Amino acid sequence: MAKRYLETIKSEEALRRVLDQVRPIQDEDYLPTHLCRDRVTTRPTFAKYSNPPFVCSAMDGYATSFAKTLEADLMNPLALNLNSDAFAVNTGDPLPRGTDSVIMVEEVERAEEKIVIRKPAYLWQHVRMIGEDIVEGDMLLPANQKIRTLDMGMLLSAGITHLHVRRKPTVFIIPTGKELVDIYKEPAHEIAPKGLIDFNSYLLVNVAEEIGFSGYRSQIVIAKEELARIVDEASHSYDVIIVNAGSSAGSEDFTEAVIGELGTVIFHGVSMMPGKPTIFGAIRGKPVFGIPGYPVSAVTSFKKFIEPLYEHLMMAPLVREHVSCIMPYKVPSRIGIEEILRVNLMKKDRKFYAFPLPRGASIFSSLARADGLITIPENIEGYEEDEEITCELLRSKEDIGNSTHIIGSHDLSLEILRDMMKRKFPDRDLISTHVGSLSGIMAFQKGITDLCTTHVLDEYEKVYNIPVVKKYVPHRPWLLVHIARRTQGLLVRRDNPKAITGISDIARSDVTFVNRQVGSGTRILFDLLLKEKGIDRDSIRGYDREESSHTAVAVLVREAVADTGIAINAVARIFSLGFIPLAEEDYDLLVTKEFAENERFKCLLDLIRSEEFKERLREVGGYNTDGTGKIKYVNG
Amino acid sequence: MAKRYLETIKSEEALRRVLDQVRPIQDEDYLPTHLCRDRVTTRPTFAKYSNPPFVCSAMDGYATSFAKTLEADLMNPLALNLNSDAFAVNTGDPLPRGTDSVIMVEEVERAEEKIVIRKPAYLWQHVRMIGEDIVEGDMLLPANQKIRTLDMGMLLSAGITHLHVRRKPTVFIIPTGKELVDIYKEPAHEIAPKGLIDFNSYLLVNVAEEIGFSGYRSQIVIAKEELARIVDEASHSYDVIIVNAGSSAGSEDFTEAVIGELGTVIFHGVSMMPGKPTIFGAIRGKPVFGIPGYPVSAVTSFKKFIEPLYEHLMMAPLVREHVSCIMPYKVPSRIGIEEILRVNLMKKDRKFYAFPLPRGASIFSSLARADGLITIPENIEGYEEDEEITCELLRSKEDIGNSTHIIGSHDLSLEILRDMMKRKFPDRDLISTHVGSLSGIMAFQKGITDLCTTHVLDEYEKVYNIPVVKKYVPHRPWLLVHIARRTQGLLVRRDNPKAITGISDIARSDVTFVNRQVGSGTRILFDLLLKEKGIDRDSIRGYDREESSHTAVAVLVREAVADTGIAINAVARIFSLGFIPLAEEDYDLLVTKEFAENERFKCLLDLIRSEEFKERLREVGGYNTDGTGKIKYVNG
Repeated sequence: MAKRYLETIKSEEALRRVLDQVRPIQDEDYLPTHLCRDRVTTRPTFAKYSNPPFVCSAMDGYATSFAKTLEADLMNPLALNLNSDAFAVNTGDPLPRGTDSVIMVEEVERAEEKIVIRKPAYLWQHVRMIGEDIVEGDMLLPANQKIRTLDMGMLLSAGITHLHVRRKPTVFIIPTGKELVDIYKEPAHEIAPKGLIDFNSYLLVNVAEEIGFSGYRSQIVIAKEELARIVDEASHSYDVIIVNAGSSAGSEDFTEAVIGELGTVIFHGVSMMPGKPTIFGAIRGKPVFGIPGYPVSAVTSFKKFIEPLYEHLMMAPLVREHVSCIMPYKVPSRIGIEEILRVNLMKKDRKFYAFPLPRGASIFSSLARADGLITIPENIEGYEEDEEITCELLRSKEDIGNSTHIIGSHDLSLEILRDMMKRKFPDRDLISTHVGSLSGIMAFQKGITDLCTTHVLDEYEKVYNIPVVKKYVPHRPWLLVHIARRTQGLLVRRDNPKAITGISDIARSDVTFVNRQVGSGTRILFDLLLKEKGIDRDSIRGYDREESSHTAVAVLVREAVADTGIAINAVARIFSLGFIPLAEEDYDLLVTKEFAENERFKCLLDLIRSEEFKERLREVGGYNTDGTGKIKYVNG
Repeated sequence: MAKRYLETIKSEEALRRVLDQVRPIQDEDYLPTHLCRDRVTTRPTFAKYSNPPFVCSAMDGYATSFAKTLEADLMNPLALNLNSDAFAVNTGDPLPRGTDSVIMVEEVERAEEKIVIRKPAYLWQHVRMIGEDIVEGDMLLPANQKIRTLDMGMLLSAGITHLHVRRKPTVFIIPTGKELVDIYKEPAHEIAPKGLIDFNSYLLVNVAEEIGFSGYRSQIVIAKEELARIVDEASHSYDVIIVNAGSSAGSEDFTEAVIGELGTVIFHGVSMMPGKPTIFGAIRGKPVFGIPGYPVSAVTSFKKFIEPLYEHLMMAPLVREHVSCIMPYKVPSRIGIEEILRVNLMKKDRKFYAFPLPRGASIFSSLARADGLITIPENIEGYEEDEEITCELLRSKEDIGNSTHIIGSHDLSLEILRDMMKRKFPDRDLISTHVGSLSGIMAFQKGITDLCTTHVLDEYEKVYNIPVVKKYVPHRPWLLVHIARRTQGLLVRRDNPKAITGISDIARSDVTFVNRQVGSGTRILFDLLLKEKGIDRDSIRGYDREESSHTAVAVLVREAVADTGIAINAVARIFSLGFIPLAEEDYDLLVTKEFAENERFKCLLDLIRSEEFKERLREVGGYNTDGTGKIKYVNG
């Protein structure tokens, strides 16, 4: 029976209903101050003692009364008797009665039971006054303040040994779904045929703990009755309950029913994407969420509702950093639904550019690889090219700024370079955004990137990269560094069951193909080959099915989703596939002349030219490294 | 015997010697992935499985072969037989053999063992391809990468249940000094007469744990032999040893000698402030630091040497956020020494302004209250007014931006307002920078602040605030909100041992006085009173001793460091002092007309006008709240 969402409400309205339902935590913990990092105060804290609590020496030396030293000068050294006129003190010692200044140990000559000085002291010289740091009774922290490490030092220095802090809220996460397998219980090799790895629950426990919850995970729950029993029990003991997933409209989506039977469903369905089928309800006054199964949706839903709920429970804001950035491309979005985009950020000339990552809720890696999130409100049709927008950061700005970014065509060599870069320079990263050669060259031409990887054959000159870059980047001075020659060819399964022997077999009616995306060098090569052979695109079964990497094509061929596709030799070896060579091509790195002078580029070039890099490429196989690291062309 | 520093070297040279001495951690831990948050990888990680590991349904619905659906349209519904032509699937279920597309449950009518559809499916409709998220063999993380929560999700989804991560480095912190008392061991009331609270060691353990060390603390060590024994033992088992303090030149500063006897001293003395007397050496190849006793110096030394050492040990950078800011005043600094300034930051019109906090190494609260640190390099004489500089943040930019800043004169009412603000609006803070009335008005006039607290009497008109603000802020439209009337007077000890009865007694030769800083309203009032009474400043013992708050004056009088001083009635009550009234004054809040329209100001004004605020002021005592919250004057 197909269920319906109860309704679809706006995310702000949904959040308002969540917060209305729940009261801030009232319980307090009373803890030693030095164990209170990141906890939240429930009361203002006032200094118990002054710091320092008495007048004390600020230096190692001798305490005296300044009045007794007035006669001393360079020509007339003055002797003070120890333990009557002067007293040895170390930093922090209370000033002995009758003294009001300290002479530094370095400025004194010792002579038996005397010290000799050659200049007078002044009143309160090198003396710390009582309360100079903190005065007894000062308010040190207000209520509802998150305690930082440095705050703890200040509190201890003022005699505050224990603190009242708000109890940490608890959250219970219940993974549900018969397709799920627990990766820590099933032998690894049995997962693939059986189902999908439950990683959401482990992820959500961590996401929750990271912001300050105590997070707990239940076993995977399959049956509705068991779910009801566990949710019922949990509503006695946890502050927040999350059921993941079963919030959609499938035949095994019990979450709404369970909440409805045990309590009240307050909303089901939010006009946001990802995260639309979010459920919220209350059981015994406890907030219960049903959040979607796709991990991107689950995290989005968590950030949208459970993060603000945490702030509300704790009466303390979480830190979220934002940055202003520019959209290099137009990004359309549907009116009437709020969309949360994952983006990679690139810093160039003090500006940040946002490159949207795959938008599907099923692509979790694009969330893990994202630098930030951008919200497209429901009342607009997306963002225009060059529009300036706000991005919530998932990675620190300095991290992003310290990374070297490459936009363009993907190759395994980029992963090898990244690994080498992080080994030699742990504080640098090499981030590549895979948009294909042509889009990379366009971004390069626009000035958004200084580095672009490309392998584009010119149809007429039959030369790689140089003609096309000359054509599209006429005005910026650039140079082209050769990374490697690599062989492109047809992938087939090991036993080649369809007996494919060359490009002409692709058009056979019993052969299915998987293509690469428009603008990729491989697609350009493929289309040229078709043209040369006079093969009609429409005759190819799967011409319209596009993948955006060599490895994606290889997996589809290996799993018999397609019979063949074009990719580089290297992936054929990695995935144990047959390979029918079609062409050798140059995979090159395009760099602006300006950035070529930058120390970061020089590091990268050193890596490219290293023996280790060439060796690792040869190990992977399918690469010719004879010219690796050579400057192929300089323009302007 | 006075010891000397071995030398004084630059901080970069010192850091180079530290890093040269120590190798990155070689040991690995092998841990479940979901317990690896914030750990650092030692090897690149490659996907074990593709995600999804098989072709599966992207929706709840029915899997079919698109070829069987081509005839369906709105007018000609098509029936498909369940379990032969179509198969019920939930999201994530593998696609049954022979199917290649999924029809959403919402688009289907069920009829007994059939489903009825009204439009055709297309190839791969609502299907997740194998590896669409992650392809087996993809490099997920390089070596030397700190693992974030989202990374853990990605790793688990690709079948990575366990990870090799670098062992956490350990640090052992040894508090030393006979003036120290352990606040958790001594009864609280015995601390003040006995010594100084050891809070450094608790603080340093937390500072170390915060960045990723496992931190351990020893008991307080007093004797040299015991220190040597403990350091010797620790050098067998910890990665880093910190002795705090004993690094200076006092008679009980054993640290250098202990390191020298057990190993090698590599440097002692760095040309930086705070943090100059830092020692570094090696015992059995283990790095050993002697860091200064003043907690500001200890933290500075830690940040300068032990943070980069951690990065070096772990081969992973720490995140430090920086912001560009403007110095509103000239800040001089000595050539030849690097100085680290603590500053409060204020955001105004998208710019940040840095207000230096007290520079003494003994004022720890100014580190705890700081928003950031600014380094003045050793080769310049400080920063000019309006110079743009870089600040390392100690608090998040958004936190700072969300705070309301007041610059000017200090009053207890500001603490009450802060507490009320944080209770009602936990995500907002009220930060006041105490520079005195006149400096506050100058900052207001310069446009750096929108809010200024002031109590300045005009000498001729005998009116508070209005004449002086009119004079100094002629061009910006502003208004003046009355906070309270308060009584200023002389503080004396309870029994008034010097029998002080009025302002004339201040000039007596047996009376010592403590003054307020130039530019404060209280100082202006005091100087006017002296003028009226014809009292000569030079006849006052302590006229030149300046304190910057009412409470600081009160503590000095109570502790008999001075006999009297001027402050408000409220502090006399809090500190149980005698009070001789001198004048009533208006404590007012100056605000720009523009900011008066801002929602944040309206919240603040609501708080000022609330009954709770007036009541809390009356509880403190010494305030007249009749006109509290009234607009006294509007200019422009």
